[in-house]
Amino acid sequence: MFLARITGSVVASTKVDSMIGQKLVVVEPLRVNEKTKGELVGTGRSFISVDVVGAGEGEVVLIVQGSSARFTDETKKLPVDCTIIGIVDTVTVGDTTIFKNHE
Amino acid sequence: MFLARITGSVVASTKVDSMIGQKLVVVEPLRVNEKTKGELVGTGRSFISVDVVGAGEGEVVLIVQGSSARFTDETKKLPVDCTIIGIVDTVTVGDTTIFKNHE
Amino acid sequence: MFLARITGSVVASTKVDSMIGQKLVVVEPLRVNEKTKGELVGTGRSFISVDVVGAGEGEVVLIVQGSSARFTDETKKLPVDCTIIGIVDTVTVGDTTIFKNHE
Amino acid sequence: MFLARITGSVVASTKVDSMIGQKLVVVEPLRVNEKTKGELVGTGRSFISVDVVGAGEGEVVLIVQGSSARFTDETKKLPVDCTIIGIVDTVTVGDTTIFKNHE
Amino acid sequence: MFLARITGSVVASTKVDSMIGQKLVVVEPLRVNEKTKGELVGTGRSFISVDVVGAGEGEVVLIVQGSSARFTDETKKLPVDCTIIGIVDTVTVGDTTIFKNHE
Repeated sequence: MFLARITGSVVASTKVDSMIGQKLVVVEPLRVNEKTKGELVGTGRSFISVDVVGAGEGEVVLIVQGSSARFTDETKKLPVDCTIIGIVDTVTVGDTTIFKNHE
Repeated sequence: MFLARITGSVVASTKVDSMIGQKLVVVEPLRVNEKTKGELVGTGRSFISVDVVGAGEGEVVLIVQGSSARFTDETKKLPVDCTIIGIVDTVTVGDTTIFKNHE
Repeated sequence: MFLARITGSVVASTKVDSMIGQKLVVVEPLRVNEKTKGELVGTGRSFISVDVVGAGEGEVVLIVQGSSARFTDETKKLPVDCTIIGIVDTVTVGDTTIFKNHE
Repeated sequence: MFLARITGSVVASTKVDSMIGQKLVVVEPLRVNEKTKGELVGTGRSFISVDVVGAGEGEVVLIVQGSSARFTDETKKLPVDCTIIGIVDTVTVGDTTIFKNHE
Repeated sequence: MFLARITGSVVASTKVDSMIGQKLVVVEPLRVNEKTKGELVGTGRSFISVDVVGAGEGEVVLIVQGSSARFTDETKKLPVDCTIIGIVDTVTVGDTTIFKNHE
Protein backbone atom coordinates (compact mmCIF):
# COMPACT_ATOMS: atom_id res chain seq x y z
CA MET A 1 0.00 0.00 0.00
CA PHE A 2 1.04 3.60 -0.20
CA LEU A 3 0.06 7.01 1.12
CA ALA A 4 -1.38 9.59 -1.25
CA ARG A 5 -3.09 12.95 -1.21
CA ILE A 6 -6.41 13.40 -3.01
CA THR A 7 -5.80 16.27 -5.40
CA GLY A 8 -8.79 16.20 -7.73
CA SER A 9 -11.59 14.34 -9.41
CA VAL A 10 -12.47 12.81 -12.76
CA VAL A 11 -15.81 12.72 -14.57
CA ALA A 12 -16.28 10.07 -17.26
CA SER A 13 -19.86 9.76 -18.44
CA THR A 14 -19.06 7.09 -21.03
CA LYS A 15 -17.76 4.12 -19.10
CA VAL A 16 -18.10 0.43 -18.36
CA ASP A 17 -21.56 -0.17 -16.78
CA SER A 18 -20.18 -1.61 -13.56
CA MET A 19 -18.34 1.65 -12.89
CA ILE A 20 -21.47 3.82 -12.96
CA GLY A 21 -21.82 5.62 -9.64
CA GLN A 22 -18.21 5.10 -8.60
CA LYS A 23 -16.44 8.26 -7.44
CA LEU A 24 -13.12 8.64 -9.26
CA VAL A 25 -10.44 10.76 -7.64
CA VAL A 26 -7.00 11.93 -8.69
CA VAL A 27 -4.33 11.04 -6.14
CA GLU A 28 -0.66 11.90 -5.84
CA PRO A 29 1.41 9.26 -4.05
CA LEU A 30 3.47 10.59 -1.13
CA ARG A 31 6.74 9.46 0.37
CA VAL A 32 8.67 10.28 3.50
CA ASN A 33 11.17 13.06 2.76
CA GLU A 34 14.31 11.06 2.17
CA LYS A 35 16.67 13.57 3.76
CA THR A 36 14.82 15.09 6.70
CA LYS A 37 12.54 12.10 7.47
CA GLY A 38 10.34 14.87 8.86
CA GLU A 39 7.51 15.32 6.37
CA LEU A 40 5.52 13.68 3.61
CA VAL A 41 6.34 14.93 0.11
CA GLY A 42 4.67 14.41 -3.23
CA THR A 43 6.15 12.07 -5.83
CA GLY A 44 4.73 13.93 -8.83
CA ARG A 45 2.96 10.82 -10.06
CA SER A 46 -0.81 10.71 -10.76
CA PHE A 47 -3.14 7.79 -10.22
CA ILE A 48 -6.90 7.52 -10.44
CA SER A 49 -8.53 5.70 -7.55
CA VAL A 50 -11.98 4.66 -6.40
CA ASP A 51 -12.92 5.51 -2.84
CA VAL A 52 -14.91 3.30 -0.49
CA VAL A 53 -14.39 5.30 2.72
CA GLY A 54 -15.74 8.75 1.85
CA ALA A 55 -12.48 10.67 1.78
CA GLY A 56 -12.40 14.30 0.68
CA GLU A 57 -10.13 16.38 -1.50
CA GLY A 58 -6.89 17.34 0.21
CA GLU A 59 -6.97 14.41 2.62
CA VAL A 60 -4.11 11.93 2.98
CA VAL A 61 -5.32 8.40 2.38
CA LEU A 62 -4.17 4.79 2.36
CA ILE A 63 -4.32 3.13 -1.06
CA VAL A 64 -4.14 -0.51 -2.12
CA GLN A 65 -3.19 -1.51 -5.65
CA GLY A 66 -3.54 -4.49 -7.96
CA SER A 67 -5.90 -7.41 -7.48
CA SER A 68 -6.18 -6.57 -3.77
CA ALA A 69 -7.97 -3.34 -4.76
CA ARG A 70 -10.94 -5.62 -5.44
CA PHE A 71 -10.97 -7.05 -1.90
CA THR A 72 -13.64 -4.75 -0.47
CA ASP A 73 -17.41 -5.29 -0.53
CA GLU A 74 -17.88 -2.36 -2.89
CA THR A 75 -15.15 -3.23 -5.39
CA LYS A 76 -15.08 -7.00 -5.59
CA LYS A 77 -16.51 -7.21 -9.10
CA LEU A 78 -15.15 -3.94 -10.48
CA PRO A 79 -12.39 -3.37 -13.02
CA VAL A 80 -10.34 -1.34 -10.55
CA ASP A 81 -6.68 -1.61 -9.58
CA CYS A 82 -6.48 1.26 -7.07
CA THR A 83 -8.79 1.72 -4.05
CA ILE A 84 -8.73 4.13 -1.11
CA ILE A 85 -9.20 1.94 1.99
CA GLY A 86 -8.49 4.42 4.80
CA ILE A 87 -8.22 8.07 5.78
CA VAL A 88 -4.93 8.74 7.53
CA ASP A 89 -5.00 10.42 10.96
CA THR A 90 -1.29 10.40 11.73
CA VAL A 91 2.01 9.21 10.32
CA THR A 92 4.85 8.79 12.80
CA VAL A 93 8.51 8.25 11.91
CA GLY A 94 10.83 7.55 14.84
CA ASP A 95 9.61 9.79 17.68
CA THR A 96 8.10 12.43 15.41
CA THR A 97 4.55 12.77 14.11
CA ILE A 98 5.30 13.89 10.55
CA PHE A 99 1.65 14.14 9.47
CA LYS A 100 -1.51 14.90 11.39
CA ASN A 101 -4.99 15.27 9.89
CA HIS A 102 -6.19 18.87 10.42
CA GLU A 103 -9.60 17.92 11.77
CA MET B 1 -6.00 3.35 -12.75
CA PHE B 2 -4.42 6.12 -14.73
CA LEU B 3 -5.30 8.69 -17.35
CA ALA B 4 -3.89 8.36 -20.86
CA ARG B 5 -4.27 9.83 -24.30
CA ILE B 6 -4.93 7.54 -27.26
CA THR B 7 -2.15 8.33 -29.71
CA GLY B 8 -2.31 5.55 -32.26
CA SER B 9 -3.21 2.02 -33.20
CA VAL B 10 -1.59 -1.36 -33.72
CA VAL B 11 -2.37 -4.03 -36.32
CA ALA B 12 -1.23 -7.58 -35.57
CA SER B 13 -2.67 -10.14 -37.95
CA THR B 14 -0.80 -13.07 -36.38
CA LYS B 15 -2.05 -13.31 -32.84
CA VAL B 16 -3.63 -15.49 -30.18
CA ASP B 17 -7.11 -16.58 -31.38
CA SER B 18 -8.95 -15.01 -28.46
CA MET B 19 -7.59 -11.59 -29.44
CA ILE B 20 -9.04 -11.64 -32.96
CA GLY B 21 -11.35 -8.67 -33.40
CA GLN B 22 -9.97 -6.74 -30.46
CA LYS B 23 -9.03 -3.13 -31.23
CA LEU B 24 -5.50 -2.39 -30.03
CA VAL B 25 -4.58 1.20 -29.36
CA VAL B 26 -1.38 2.97 -28.40
CA VAL B 27 -1.78 5.10 -25.29
CA GLU B 28 0.49 7.56 -23.53
CA PRO B 29 -0.11 7.81 -19.77
CA LEU B 30 -0.70 11.35 -18.51
CA ARG B 31 -0.01 13.00 -15.19
CA VAL B 32 -0.95 16.28 -13.59
CA ASN B 33 1.77 18.85 -14.26
CA GLU B 34 3.79 18.64 -11.07
CA LYS B 35 4.60 22.34 -10.90
CA THR B 36 1.57 24.19 -12.17
CA LYS B 37 -1.09 21.59 -11.19
CA GLY B 38 -2.93 23.23 -14.10
CA GLU B 39 -2.75 20.77 -16.98
CA LEU B 40 -2.29 17.14 -17.93
CA VAL B 41 1.09 16.32 -19.44
CA GLY B 42 2.43 13.23 -21.18
CA THR B 43 4.81 10.86 -19.41
CA GLY B 44 6.56 9.68 -22.58
CA ARG B 45 5.69 6.07 -21.86
CA SER B 46 3.81 3.84 -24.33
CA PHE B 47 1.32 1.11 -23.52
CA ILE B 48 -0.95 -0.94 -25.75
CA SER B 49 -4.53 -1.23 -24.52
CA VAL B 50 -7.77 -2.85 -25.57
CA ASP B 51 -10.84 -0.65 -25.62
CA VAL B 52 -14.34 -1.68 -24.52
CA VAL B 53 -15.98 1.77 -24.60
CA GLY B 54 -15.43 2.94 -28.19
CA ALA B 55 -12.92 5.70 -27.55
CA GLY B 56 -11.27 7.52 -30.44
CA GLU B 57 -7.76 8.67 -31.21
CA GLY B 58 -6.81 11.82 -29.33
CA GLU B 59 -9.28 11.22 -26.53
CA VAL B 60 -8.28 11.13 -22.87
CA VAL B 61 -9.33 7.85 -21.29
CA LEU B 62 -9.36 5.97 -18.00
CA ILE B 63 -7.27 2.80 -18.00
CA VAL B 64 -7.14 -0.14 -15.63
CA GLN B 65 -4.12 -2.44 -15.44
CA GLY B 66 -3.24 -5.92 -14.28
CA SER B 67 -5.72 -8.70 -13.50
CA SER B 68 -8.48 -6.10 -13.10
CA ALA B 69 -8.18 -5.36 -16.83
CA ARG B 70 -10.03 -8.66 -17.26
CA PHE B 71 -13.00 -7.55 -15.11
CA THR B 72 -15.26 -6.43 -17.95
CA ASP B 73 -17.71 -8.58 -19.92
CA GLU B 74 -15.60 -8.22 -23.08
CA THR B 75 -12.21 -8.99 -21.57
CA LYS B 76 -12.83 -11.59 -18.89
CA LYS B 77 -11.15 -14.45 -20.76
CA LEU B 78 -8.57 -12.44 -22.69
CA PRO B 79 -4.81 -12.26 -22.19
CA VAL B 80 -4.92 -8.52 -21.58
CA ASP B 81 -3.41 -6.42 -18.81
CA CYS B 82 -4.54 -2.95 -19.93
CA THR B 83 -8.15 -1.95 -20.72
CA ILE B 84 -9.80 1.39 -21.47
CA ILE B 85 -12.87 1.53 -19.21
CA GLY B 86 -14.00 5.14 -19.62
CA ILE B 87 -13.78 8.27 -21.75
CA VAL B 88 -12.87 11.27 -19.64
CA ASP B 89 -15.10 14.36 -19.77
CA THR B 90 -13.35 16.53 -17.20
CA VAL B 91 -10.47 16.43 -14.77
CA THR B 92 -10.62 18.92 -11.90
CA VAL B 93 -7.75 19.75 -9.53
CA GLY B 94 -8.60 22.07 -6.66
CA ASP B 95 -11.03 24.66 -8.09
CA THR B 96 -9.72 24.38 -11.65
CA THR B 97 -10.94 22.20 -14.50
CA ILE B 98 -7.58 21.22 -15.99
CA PHE B 99 -9.01 19.06 -18.78
CA LYS B 100 -12.29 19.23 -20.68
CA ASN B 101 -13.26 16.98 -23.58
CA HIS B 102 -13.65 19.11 -26.72
CA GLU B 103 -16.97 17.66 -27.76
CA MET C 1 0.43 -4.65 -22.93
CA PHE C 2 3.51 -3.21 -24.57
CA LEU C 3 5.47 -3.44 -27.80
CA ALA C 4 8.90 -5.05 -27.81
CA ARG C 5 11.54 -6.28 -30.20
CA ILE C 6 12.84 -9.83 -29.92
CA THR C 7 16.58 -9.44 -29.55
CA GLY C 8 17.79 -12.86 -28.47
CA SER C 9 17.16 -16.18 -26.83
CA VAL C 10 17.86 -17.99 -23.59
CA VAL C 11 18.73 -21.64 -22.99
CA ALA C 12 18.13 -23.03 -19.51
CA SER C 13 18.45 -26.81 -19.34
CA THR C 14 17.84 -26.98 -15.58
CA LYS C 15 14.35 -25.64 -15.04
CA VAL C 16 10.91 -26.26 -13.60
CA ASP C 17 9.38 -29.31 -15.37
CA SER C 18 6.38 -27.42 -16.69
CA MET C 19 8.69 -25.08 -18.60
CA ILE C 20 10.39 -27.85 -20.60
CA GLY C 21 9.89 -27.19 -24.30
CA GLN C 22 8.99 -23.54 -23.88
CA LYS C 23 10.93 -21.16 -26.13
CA LEU C 24 12.42 -18.33 -24.06
CA VAL C 25 13.28 -15.12 -25.85
CA VAL C 26 14.96 -11.90 -24.81
CA VAL C 27 12.84 -8.84 -25.61
CA GLU C 28 13.49 -5.13 -25.38
CA PRO C 29 10.35 -3.04 -24.72
CA LEU C 30 9.80 -0.22 -27.22
CA ARG C 31 8.11 3.14 -26.90
CA VAL C 32 7.02 5.80 -29.31
CA ASN C 33 9.79 8.41 -29.68
CA GLU C 34 8.64 11.06 -27.26
CA LYS C 35 9.81 14.00 -29.34
CA THR C 36 9.25 13.08 -32.96
CA LYS C 37 6.28 10.70 -32.43
CA GLY C 38 7.63 9.23 -35.67
CA GLU C 39 9.37 5.99 -34.72
CA LEU C 40 9.60 3.24 -32.14
CA VAL C 41 12.68 3.38 -29.95
CA GLY C 42 14.16 0.93 -27.47
CA THR C 43 13.84 1.48 -23.74
CA GLY C 44 17.06 -0.34 -22.82
CA ARG C 45 15.20 -2.73 -20.54
CA SER C 46 15.38 -6.53 -20.92
CA PHE C 47 12.63 -9.02 -20.25
CA ILE C 48 12.42 -12.75 -20.90
CA SER C 49 9.19 -13.88 -22.54
CA VAL C 50 7.56 -17.08 -23.73
CA ASP C 51 6.13 -17.08 -27.22
CA VAL C 52 2.89 -18.74 -28.30
CA VAL C 53 2.64 -17.26 -31.80
CA GLY C 54 5.92 -18.32 -33.46
CA ALA C 55 7.62 -14.93 -33.66
CA GLY C 56 11.20 -14.63 -34.87
CA GLU C 57 14.24 -12.70 -33.77
CA GLY C 58 14.12 -9.06 -34.82
CA GLU C 59 10.33 -8.96 -35.01
CA VAL C 60 8.23 -6.43 -33.16
CA VAL C 61 5.68 -8.17 -30.97
CA LEU C 62 2.81 -7.53 -28.58
CA ILE C 63 3.46 -8.67 -25.02
CA VAL C 64 1.13 -9.19 -22.08
CA GLN C 65 2.41 -9.20 -18.48
CA GLY C 66 1.36 -10.43 -15.09
CA SER C 67 -1.37 -12.98 -14.39
CA SER C 68 -2.87 -12.29 -17.83
CA ALA C 69 0.26 -13.84 -19.38
CA ARG C 70 -1.28 -17.14 -18.30
CA PHE C 71 -4.53 -16.54 -20.24
CA THR C 72 -3.60 -18.51 -23.37
CA ASP C 73 -4.12 -22.23 -23.97
CA GLU C 74 -0.38 -22.85 -23.94
CA THR C 75 0.46 -20.90 -20.80
CA LYS C 76 -2.46 -21.35 -18.46
CA LYS C 77 -0.62 -23.57 -15.98
CA LEU C 78 2.87 -22.16 -16.44
CA PRO C 79 4.92 -20.01 -14.07
CA VAL C 80 5.19 -17.21 -16.63
CA ASP C 81 4.52 -13.48 -16.30
CA CYS C 82 5.39 -12.36 -19.84
CA THR C 83 3.90 -13.85 -23.04
CA ILE C 84 4.14 -12.82 -26.69
CA ILE C 85 0.55 -12.83 -27.97
CA GLY C 86 0.91 -11.18 -31.39
CA ILE C 87 3.32 -10.24 -34.18
CA VAL C 88 2.95 -6.58 -35.08
CA ASP C 89 2.30 -5.64 -38.72
CA THR C 90 1.96 -1.89 -38.36
CA VAL C 91 1.93 0.82 -35.72
CA THR C 92 0.23 4.08 -36.67
CA VAL C 93 0.44 7.34 -34.72
CA GLY C 94 -1.75 10.18 -36.00
CA ASP C 95 -1.65 9.91 -39.80
CA THR C 96 1.76 8.27 -39.93
CA THR C 97 2.68 4.60 -40.05
CA ILE C 98 5.68 4.64 -37.73
CA PHE C 99 6.40 0.91 -37.97
CA LYS C 100 5.79 -1.60 -40.73
CA ASN C 101 6.87 -5.25 -40.66
CA HIS C 102 9.41 -5.82 -43.44
CA GLU C 103 7.75 -8.94 -44.82
CA MET D 1 10.13 -10.06 -2.33
CA PHE D 2 12.36 -7.30 -1.08
CA LEU D 3 14.13 -6.18 2.09
CA ALA D 4 12.95 -3.07 3.91
CA ARG D 5 13.46 -1.23 7.15
CA ILE D 6 10.46 -0.34 9.30
CA THR D 7 10.70 3.40 9.75
CA GLY D 8 7.34 4.39 11.19
CA SER D 9 3.65 3.74 11.66
CA VAL D 10 0.30 4.94 10.35
CA VAL D 11 -2.97 5.46 12.20
CA ALA D 12 -6.16 5.51 10.15
CA SER D 13 -9.31 5.38 12.27
CA THR D 14 -11.66 5.63 9.27
CA LYS D 15 -11.01 2.56 7.18
CA VAL D 16 -12.48 -0.52 5.54
CA ASP D 17 -13.96 -2.77 8.25
CA SER D 18 -11.76 -5.74 7.43
CA MET D 19 -8.67 -3.66 8.18
CA ILE D 20 -9.67 -2.82 11.76
CA GLY D 21 -7.00 -4.09 14.12
CA GLN D 22 -4.30 -4.40 11.46
CA LYS D 23 -1.01 -2.74 12.35
CA LEU D 24 0.12 -0.48 9.52
CA VAL D 25 3.81 0.35 9.27
CA VAL D 26 5.87 2.61 7.05
CA VAL D 27 8.73 0.76 5.37
CA GLU D 28 11.63 1.91 3.23
CA PRO D 29 12.83 -0.71 0.72
CA LEU D 30 16.54 -1.47 0.89
CA ARG D 31 19.03 -2.59 -1.72
CA VAL D 32 22.57 -3.87 -1.67
CA ASN D 33 24.98 -0.94 -2.16
CA GLU D 34 25.66 -1.19 -5.86
CA LYS D 35 29.31 -0.17 -5.63
CA THR D 36 30.66 -1.66 -2.44
CA LYS D 37 28.32 -4.68 -2.21
CA GLY D 38 29.09 -4.30 1.48
CA GLU D 39 25.96 -2.82 3.05
CA LEU D 40 22.24 -2.35 2.68
CA VAL D 41 21.17 1.15 1.68
CA GLY D 42 17.79 2.84 1.55
CA THR D 43 16.03 3.46 -1.74
CA GLY D 44 14.11 6.53 -0.58
CA ARG D 45 10.80 4.98 -1.46
CA SER D 46 7.94 4.59 1.05
CA PHE D 47 5.43 1.77 1.26
CA ILE D 48 2.80 0.96 3.86
CA SER D 49 2.73 -2.68 4.92
CA VAL D 50 0.78 -4.92 7.26
CA ASP D 51 2.80 -7.11 9.61
CA VAL D 52 1.97 -10.69 10.57
CA VAL D 53 5.21 -11.54 12.37
CA GLY D 54 5.42 -8.90 15.11
CA ALA D 55 8.34 -6.89 13.78
CA GLY D 56 9.40 -3.66 15.47
CA GLU D 57 10.44 -0.24 14.30
CA GLY D 58 14.00 -0.14 13.00
CA GLU D 59 14.07 -3.83 12.11
CA VAL D 60 14.95 -5.12 8.66
CA VAL D 61 12.17 -7.30 7.31
CA LEU D 62 11.20 -9.44 4.33
CA ILE D 63 8.20 -8.13 2.38
CA VAL D 64 5.98 -9.76 -0.21
CA GLN D 65 3.92 -7.70 -2.65
CA GLY D 66 0.88 -8.10 -4.85
CA SER D 67 -1.69 -10.90 -4.64
CA SER D 68 0.84 -13.04 -2.74
CA ALA D 69 0.60 -10.57 0.14
CA ARG D 70 -2.76 -12.22 0.81
CA PHE D 71 -1.24 -15.72 1.14
CA THR D 72 -0.96 -15.79 4.92
CA ASP D 73 -3.64 -16.90 7.40
CA GLU D 74 -4.03 -13.36 8.71
CA THR D 75 -4.26 -11.58 5.35
CA LYS D 76 -6.11 -13.92 3.04
CA LYS D 77 -9.29 -11.86 2.86
CA LEU D 78 -7.78 -8.42 3.30
CA PRO D 79 -7.34 -5.63 0.76
CA VAL D 80 -3.56 -5.60 1.22
CA ASP D 81 -0.78 -5.70 -1.35
CA CYS D 82 2.25 -5.55 0.98
CA THR D 83 2.89 -7.88 3.93
CA ILE D 84 5.87 -8.38 6.24
CA ILE D 85 6.47 -12.14 6.31
CA GLY D 86 9.83 -12.37 8.11
CA ILE D 87 12.29 -10.58 10.36
CA VAL D 88 15.78 -10.68 8.87
CA ASP D 89 18.64 -12.03 10.99
CA THR D 90 21.46 -11.80 8.47
CA VAL D 91 22.10 -10.88 4.85
CA THR D 92 25.23 -12.33 3.29
CA VAL D 93 26.73 -11.28 -0.05
CA GLY D 94 29.70 -13.32 -1.23
CA ASP D 95 31.73 -14.14 1.89
CA THR D 96 30.59 -11.08 3.82
CA THR D 97 27.71 -10.69 6.25
CA ILE D 98 26.51 -7.24 5.21
CA PHE D 99 23.64 -7.08 7.72
CA LYS D 100 23.20 -8.62 11.15
CA ASN D 101 20.25 -8.03 13.47
CA HIS D 102 21.49 -6.30 16.63
CA GLU D 103 19.71 -8.59 19.06
CA MET E 1 10.40 -12.94 -16.51
CA PHE E 2 13.87 -11.51 -16.13
CA LEU E 3 17.46 -12.65 -15.79
CA ALA E 4 19.30 -12.13 -12.52
CA ARG E 5 22.49 -13.12 -10.78
CA ILE E 6 22.35 -14.70 -7.34
CA THR E 7 24.52 -12.49 -5.18
CA GLY E 8 23.74 -13.58 -1.64
CA SER E 9 21.42 -15.13 0.88
CA VAL E 10 19.06 -14.11 3.65
CA VAL E 11 18.38 -15.79 6.99
CA ALA E 12 15.11 -14.96 8.74
CA SER E 13 14.38 -17.22 11.68
CA THR E 14 11.16 -15.42 12.63
CA LYS E 15 8.84 -15.83 9.68
CA VAL E 16 5.47 -17.01 8.45
CA ASP E 17 5.16 -20.78 9.12
CA SER E 18 4.65 -21.70 5.48
CA MET E 19 8.04 -20.19 4.63
CA ILE E 20 10.01 -22.40 7.03
CA GLY E 21 12.59 -24.36 5.05
CA GLN E 22 12.48 -22.10 2.01
CA LYS E 23 15.89 -20.93 0.79
CA LEU E 24 15.90 -17.16 0.36
CA VAL E 25 18.46 -15.65 -1.98
CA VAL E 26 19.42 -12.12 -2.91
CA VAL E 27 19.33 -11.53 -6.66
CA GLU E 28 20.37 -8.63 -8.85
CA PRO E 29 18.34 -8.30 -12.07
CA LEU E 30 20.44 -8.14 -15.23
CA ARG E 31 19.86 -6.49 -18.58
CA VAL E 32 21.54 -6.63 -21.94
CA ASN E 33 24.11 -3.83 -22.19
CA GLU E 34 22.13 -1.19 -24.02
CA LYS E 35 25.06 0.11 -26.07
CA THR E 36 27.20 -2.88 -26.93
CA LYS E 37 24.45 -5.55 -26.89
CA GLY E 38 27.39 -7.78 -26.04
CA GLU E 39 27.10 -8.57 -22.35
CA LEU E 40 24.74 -8.80 -19.41
CA VAL E 41 25.08 -5.98 -16.90
CA GLY E 42 23.64 -5.49 -13.43
CA THR E 43 20.77 -3.10 -12.82
CA GLY E 44 21.73 -2.28 -9.22
CA ARG E 45 18.36 -3.40 -7.93
CA SER E 46 17.94 -6.07 -5.22
CA PHE E 47 15.17 -8.62 -4.94
CA ILE E 48 14.73 -11.58 -2.62
CA SER E 49 13.67 -14.78 -4.34
CA VAL E 50 12.84 -18.36 -3.44
CA ASP E 51 14.55 -21.07 -5.46
CA VAL E 52 12.95 -24.32 -6.63
CA VAL E 53 15.72 -25.50 -8.97
CA GLY E 54 18.80 -25.65 -6.71
CA ALA E 55 20.74 -22.73 -8.14
CA GLY E 56 23.97 -21.57 -6.52
CA GLU E 57 25.48 -18.23 -5.66
CA GLY E 58 26.97 -16.47 -8.66
CA GLU E 59 24.74 -18.28 -11.16
CA VAL E 60 22.56 -16.47 -13.68
CA VAL E 61 18.96 -17.55 -13.31
CA LEU E 62 15.49 -17.05 -14.78
CA ILE E 63 13.01 -15.43 -12.42
CA VAL E 64 9.23 -15.13 -12.54
CA GLN E 65 7.36 -12.45 -10.59
CA GLY E 66 3.90 -11.78 -9.27
CA SER E 67 1.11 -14.33 -8.92
CA SER E 68 2.89 -16.59 -11.44
CA ALA E 69 5.68 -17.06 -8.88
CA ARG E 70 3.20 -19.35 -7.14
CA PHE E 71 2.73 -21.58 -10.21
CA THR E 72 5.23 -24.30 -9.24
CA ASP E 73 4.57 -27.38 -7.10
CA GLU E 74 6.78 -26.03 -4.32
CA THR E 75 5.38 -22.49 -4.18
CA LYS E 76 1.69 -22.80 -4.92
CA LYS E 77 0.53 -21.97 -1.39
CA LEU E 78 3.37 -19.67 -0.37
CA PRO E 79 3.36 -15.90 0.12
CA VAL E 80 6.03 -15.41 -2.55
CA ASP E 81 6.15 -13.04 -5.52
CA CYS E 82 9.57 -13.96 -6.91
CA THR E 83 10.73 -17.51 -7.81
CA ILE E 84 13.81 -18.85 -9.57
CA ILE E 85 12.49 -21.28 -12.20
CA GLY E 86 15.61 -22.00 -14.25
CA ILE E 87 19.40 -21.89 -14.33
CA VAL E 88 20.63 -20.15 -17.47
CA ASP E 89 23.13 -21.96 -19.71
CA THR E 90 23.44 -19.38 -22.49
CA VAL E 91 22.04 -16.06 -23.59
CA THR E 92 22.36 -15.23 -27.27
CA VAL E 93 21.74 -11.82 -28.85
CA GLY E 94 21.90 -11.70 -32.63
CA ASP E 95 24.76 -14.05 -33.61
CA THR E 96 26.66 -13.64 -30.36
CA THR E 97 26.53 -15.72 -27.21
CA ILE E 98 26.73 -12.96 -24.64
CA PHE E 99 26.56 -15.25 -21.61
CA LYS E 100 27.69 -18.82 -21.07
CA ASN E 101 27.54 -20.72 -17.78
CA HIS E 102 31.06 -21.55 -16.67
CA GLU E 103 30.38 -25.22 -16.00
